[in-house]
Amino acid sequence: MILTVTLNTALDLTYDVPALVPHSSHRVTALSERPGGKGVNVARVLTALGHDSVVTGFAGGATGAVLRTMLAALPTGPVAVTDALVPVAGDTRRTLAVVDRATGDTTQFNEPGPHVTADEWTAFLASYGELLTAADAVALCGSLPPGIHVGAYAELVRLARTAGVPVLLDTSGEPLRRGIAARPDLIKPNADELAQLTGSRDPLRGARDARRRGAHGVIASLGPAGMLAVSPDGTWQASPPAPVRGNPTGAGDSAVAGLLSGLVEGLDWPDRLRRAVALSTATVLSPTAGEFDRAAYEELLPRVGIEEHADAA
Amino acid sequence: MILTVTLNTALDLTYDVPALVPHSSHRVTALSERPGGKGVNVARVLTALGHDSVVTGFAGGATGAVLRTMLAALPTGPVAVTDALVPVAGDTRRTLAVVDRATGDTTQFNEPGPHVTADEWTAFLASYGELLTAADAVALCGSLPPGIHVGAYAELVRLARTAGVPVLLDTSGEPLRRGIAARPDLIKPNADELAQLTGSRDPLRGARDARRRGAHGVIASLGPAGMLAVSPDGTWQASPPAPVRGNPTGAGDSAVAGLLSGLVEGLDWPDRLRRAVALSTATVLSPTAGEFDRAAYEELLPRVGIEEHADAA
Repeated sequence: MILTVTLNTALDLTYDVPALVPHSSHRVTALSERPGGKGVNVARVLTALGHDSVVTGFAGGATGAVLRTMLAALPTGPVAVTDALVPVAGDTRRTLAVVDRATGDTTQFNEPGPHVTADEWTAFLASYGELLTAADAVALCGSLPPGIHVGAYAELVRLARTAGVPVLLDTSGEPLRRGIAARPDLIKPNADELAQLTGSRDPLRGARDARRRGAHGVIASLGPAGMLAVSPDGTWQASPPAPVRGNPTGAGDSAVAGLLSGLVEGLDWPDRLRRAVALSTATVLSPTAGEFDRAAYEELLPRVGIEEHADAA
Repeated sequence: MILTVTLNTALDLTYDVPALVPHSSHRVTALSERPGGKGVNVARVLTALGHDSVVTGFAGGATGAVLRTMLAALPTGPVAVTDALVPVAGDTRRTLAVVDRATGDTTQFNEPGPHVTADEWTAFLASYGELLTAADAVALCGSLPPGIHVGAYAELVRLARTAGVPVLLDTSGEPLRRGIAARPDLIKPNADELAQLTGSRDPLRGARDARRRGAHGVIASLGPAGMLAVSPDGTWQASPPAPVRGNPTGAGDSAVAGLLSGLVEGLDWPDRLRRAVALSTATVLSPTAGEFDRAAYEELLPRVGIEEHADAA
């Protein structure tokens, strides 16, 4: 199974409003709720790709209870998402996306998340250590909730490496900087995250710098242009066959699922990248935020362009 | 006891953001949750005024459960708010106020509320009839959730009148228009609601028209200018001693509590109006939306100006 860690899980709400007018009152015309947080999204895509996944991190309060009920209600088949979330006293956060139906634009509000105590963190570490013994790979995803030390991901990367489990780190800012120093197998920054980490807006230069800082492989998301992978085995750029329009929510999480499933299946870098780019493009094309369009995925997969850089990584 | 009916109860959320920028992402810097819906607010103020109150209406789903937990946790003393909400299968709505800390302006989002079935409405009517037998007065408050017929308030007004219980109706639009025809003892429209009902922007003319349509007494809220009461006993205008600045959320609900408690205590119209205006002004002055500042209330009460109109109502 593939383990995904979401320390700051979320109940993701979407409100449709006819038009967003600041400082006025809005009738919400449509409303949806889904279990959220990056690692939860990754787990759902992994299941769709045929991999058992286990979700851990924290959940608490009324919103945490709703999140867990929704996880339990996910469709099961030959493979499933298993809930191994650790209880916290605080309330799991909500995220709210307000969609302006006139323009299609989204305005996002993110609650900070529960304050996690030292005892709760200790309970999580015990559970994480246990889960690693059965994991083929682990993804560490998203922001840290209040109360968790900024070096938390570095600690989790080290534990995964000690357990011999390949580890992908998908976060930003100081937690990313600290986490990289613990030598994760993969990181998947976007252009902004890479620039914040390395000071360079050039993805190739930034990715090489991130490798020097400790990441074994760097997959830089280039948005609609695809992905750049810089690894000990070589450097590749993968591009979708054509630019697409749609909702990019969850596209990065789908890419993480593509990369990790490819790693576990022993695919080579070009095939992992094809899968990641096709999945993230099919996620942008899906009418539902955070879901991918399977027909589009299968149609795109053989059409992703792969270009190898001749120069040394 | 005083009964308050809130057919579309709510969990009221407030998000503070540093500045609201449409089509961007916001970190919520402070978050609060409180039990909401107009009748719930009225009940809380009634308790603070020394009156037992019973809250009915509907509650359901995870948000309904949080609402009920919060009602149960309200401070109790010699008097209390009693929860007599009727369960529904759907989810109680949330309302969200996003406060821009840079300007103090609020942007409001209101979910529609659960779809109430015919069986749930029947269960509510049975409970309402029972509760009326012990009620000294009843307030019917706010919007109708989906599924409830537009004449619902007219039905509830008639049942209260048959039971001999004075009834105040505080709603708007077609439910108000229909409800008035059933001859409630009091209505408390603001200027917009009165204009929508009668077509007149002149409060005195509008209030007289509303009386002809069936309301025995009309208390028109004039916002910062106070209130105008048009009743079989006469016509009065009540004004706060000075204009105040603050958050008007809940000011109308405090006024309803002031009017109903005054009616139950047998106060004359000028004293009821003094209480209503002092309470709503003290609510605007409170730093917490929907709460009133008791010290301000007591200081304001003797200073509310009352002017009687000589002309016939």
